[in-house]
Amino acid sequence: MTASPLRVLVWNENIHETRGDEKALANYPDGIHTAIADGLRRHLGADAEVGTATLQEDEHGLPQNVVDRTDVLLWWGHAGHDLVDDAVVDRVHRAVLEGMGILVLHSGHYSKIFTRLMGTTCALKWRNDGERELVWTVAPRHPIAAGVPHPINIPEQEMYGEFFDIPAPEETVFLSTFEGGEVFRSGLTYTRGNGRVFYFSPGDQEFPVYHHVDVQRVLANGVRWAAPVGERRAFTADYHAPGWHLA
Amino acid sequence: MTASPLRVLVWNENIHETRGDEKALANYPDGIHTAIADGLRRHLGADAEVGTATLQEDEHGLPQNVVDRTDVLLWWGHAGHDLVDDAVVDRVHRAVLEGMGILVLHSGHYSKIFTRLMGTTCALKWRNDGERELVWTVAPRHPIAAGVPHPINIPEQEMYGEFFDIPAPEETVFLSTFEGGEVFRSGLTYTRGNGRVFYFSPGDQEFPVYHHVDVQRVLANGVRWAAPVGERRAFTADYHAPGWHLA
Amino acid sequence: MTASPLRVLVWNENIHETRGDEKALANYPDGIHTAIADGLRRHLGADAEVGTATLQEDEHGLPQNVVDRTDVLLWWGHAGHDLVDDAVVDRVHRAVLEGMGILVLHSGHYSKIFTRLMGTTCALKWRNDGERELVWTVAPRHPIAAGVPHPINIPEQEMYGEFFDIPAPEETVFLSTFEGGEVFRSGLTYTRGNGRVFYFSPGDQEFPVYHHVDVQRVLANGVRWAAPVGERRAFTADYHAPGWHLA
Amino acid sequence: MTASPLRVLVWNENIHETRGDEKALANYPDGIHTAIADGLRRHLGADAEVGTATLQEDEHGLPQNVVDRTDVLLWWGHAGHDLVDDAVVDRVHRAVLEGMGILVLHSGHYSKIFTRLMGTTCALKWRNDGERELVWTVAPRHPIAAGVPHPINIPEQEMYGEFFDIPAPEETVFLSTFEGGEVFRSGLTYTRGNGRVFYFSPGDQEFPVYHHVDVQRVLANGVRWAAPVGERRAFTADYHAPGWHLA
Repeated sequence: MTASPLRVLVWNENIHETRGDEKALANYPDGIHTAIADGLRRHLGADAEVGTATLQEDEHGLPQNVVDRTDVLLWWGHAGHDLVDDAVVDRVHRAVLEGMGILVLHSGHYSKIFTRLMGTTCALKWRNDGERELVWTVAPRHPIAAGVPHPINIPEQEMYGEFFDIPAPEETVFLSTFEGGEVFRSGLTYTRGNGRVFYFSPGDQEFPVYHHVDVQRVLANGVRWAAPVGERRAFTADYHAPGWHLA
Repeated sequence: MTASPLRVLVWNENIHETRGDEKALANYPDGIHTAIADGLRRHLGADAEVGTATLQEDEHGLPQNVVDRTDVLLWWGHAGHDLVDDAVVDRVHRAVLEGMGILVLHSGHYSKIFTRLMGTTCALKWRNDGERELVWTVAPRHPIAAGVPHPINIPEQEMYGEFFDIPAPEETVFLSTFEGGEVFRSGLTYTRGNGRVFYFSPGDQEFPVYHHVDVQRVLANGVRWAAPVGERRAFTADYHAPGWHLA
Repeated sequence: MTASPLRVLVWNENIHETRGDEKALANYPDGIHTAIADGLRRHLGADAEVGTATLQEDEHGLPQNVVDRTDVLLWWGHAGHDLVDDAVVDRVHRAVLEGMGILVLHSGHYSKIFTRLMGTTCALKWRNDGERELVWTVAPRHPIAAGVPHPINIPEQEMYGEFFDIPAPEETVFLSTFEGGEVFRSGLTYTRGNGRVFYFSPGDQEFPVYHHVDVQRVLANGVRWAAPVGERRAFTADYHAPGWHLA
Repeated sequence: MTASPLRVLVWNENIHETRGDEKALANYPDGIHTAIADGLRRHLGADAEVGTATLQEDEHGLPQNVVDRTDVLLWWGHAGHDLVDDAVVDRVHRAVLEGMGILVLHSGHYSKIFTRLMGTTCALKWRNDGERELVWTVAPRHPIAAGVPHPINIPEQEMYGEFFDIPAPEETVFLSTFEGGEVFRSGLTYTRGNGRVFYFSPGDQEFPVYHHVDVQRVLANGVRWAAPVGERRAFTADYHAPGWHLA
């Protein structure tokens, strides 16, 4: 079974912050990863040990031994998707297929790891005008929606609009609308191999979305939902002799 | 195989019209069923023979021999769901399970036939203030979305909002947003037995939605999509002797 | 949140037993419900309080106050589906839509409650020759499959074969094969309203399947999975004034 | 709309044949691609123009202009997945996302194009002992199952068994059982971007499966199902100014 407490790692490309983008620093003086990690700690308490890692670290802070001991990884990237080393993407991909949970956040829709897990372009429409986003629950029984108001009201946020070029989700938990009239499938689940994937779009470097208590609650719920239920296992194509299963 | 041309039947409870509701008559002087049928004829041409039936007719215009020769049925009801005879609902239900296509429209979400096919309450939020509805395609490859603008712009319409208490759709073709900020899963497909079900929410007695060329196109696409591919067949629970399939 | 421990109720029509069917009594001298309940107690321990109810009791042992305090109901019926009072079915249906979990077992595929939740005939092929059934996991990450061998080997069981006339499952957890070569979707999940539904086919009055440790484990996993996550809530269609959600 | 007739291309790595594997040549003296193409011509007649391409040709017979004019591609590979140039895989991948249909056959489960479209390992269990495979329809309304017996009986075939490490299919059309007792999800559909994907497992170089009339019928049905409904379109992430959709 999963280690207790859950070992959670928040990854951030940390580019807007390190290059000094004013809005990003105003909202996230210690980096987006720190704000997300703090929110998780607040909601998960002793149930989780939450760490962080960034692009600038050795192997982007994701060497094999770190990935090996991560139950759930959160991924935030935007300006530096191309800077992520393919070997690290391979490693994270393999870990997800073997059972590590992953939450892909906002502009992570275009990250190497997400497009590889999806198999599609993951394109979408966008407009960064600070519009009100309403996040509606369309799966009220889903554990990721537990305790969340209907709708979540985010006063200012980047618009993400359909068509979002993803495979049909296994579960659509949230749909978002924006002041401009657009709609977006904003909370989506997938299974890939032995791992669970949750994509959640609210959250941007230019707005303080990760300080929103309900956004934090969704992420905490998502971490619980994506947690592994057993050991990691690799699926391989093997010969099976007649009667192998009848012993 | 399906008869050619397709035999399509538009059913309307025809209550707003026969009791003289002014708005309904202003929009649909010959009844909602006539407007829908005209739209289908325009788009399907020689590919379909389109008839109509109403609640007020004998057996609501749906005696067994009529149901037997219907390939696709469209269902519009609102004020008189309870007036529909259970025997007729049984007959239509059985026909769907055996292969007849059905399109359930707008307030038909609360009809006996739809709630029976779904197994849920089919409840939703609503507000009839004549708001703009935008209908967004989230399955661009789906034949029901063929030739439809993204979004369809309906200037005035009743708001239908989530949570819509339905089973998770097999395919979500359209999502709608409303001026008030609500969202609705507005174009949904299901298979039930050997039959196909398409629910499409745009369309109300108080607004001229069924005269909208894109709404008509969606309905025409839906009729083609829901058309049977073979003979009707009833599924029954039968004993099968060992080796029955190895002859 | 859900009461702790989980309040589980195993319902059995209890007809084969009370009319003295020899095989049923040989396998289940205290009734199928007792065997199922014992298995759940073994696997769930202090996490659950497991009771039983039967057709022969007042209101079939399912008066409103009992249904109200049940978190997860298991349903076993075969020879007496028609004897179940419609008012009780209404009550159970409503409870599921409002959040009670339900596990429908084996021949319960033809029960009033299951066909109402599904909206289809739920027909299937069958042959009661005591064939080996292998239950294969096709969703290894699913919590219902946790700790279960691949395949589960059931030495003697009734064959249930496709086509099983059900809506496309939300999740297919198990597929079964039989010595005669047939296949059956044997472990399936659905959401209906605020409630979760798990159908699991292994289990018959003529074979001691409910004494099989892995079958017991699946049922225990299913109970955990179907447990409510919050208060019961009824979905209704209500007017919502403009701006109701922007307060 | 799609060109009429449909432009279909059958791709084969053509390795077993060109290196002289006796069984492959006995079954497919002109190559597997030729047998598949002949079957499609028989079933589709004037509705399709069917060509072939192989690994050994320039750019594997898949230069840009050929891919551009292909409506539906069939992919057969086994021993040479690694020999397929990544640039060609990129090209085919892009074409699928923009609307080209693709049928991936049997051992193509491990091809670069399929694993890229799926995002998983696509591992499975196998045994090449020439066992009887029964192919059961679990979606009788699906056009790919039209006219197909239930089950299709394939006297000799390689066993493919679960767990098949793929994303949950959008539609499961066929399930196969094997004499050894294994089960396999053998006919599966996906949408990726604007394109449709059908995976169908029956078919192996060591057995004459592609001469089986029902296997041919499934492939022909699959080609019709996967055919594009409109122009190819690339999805990109673009800025959309406020009100862009309200003109």
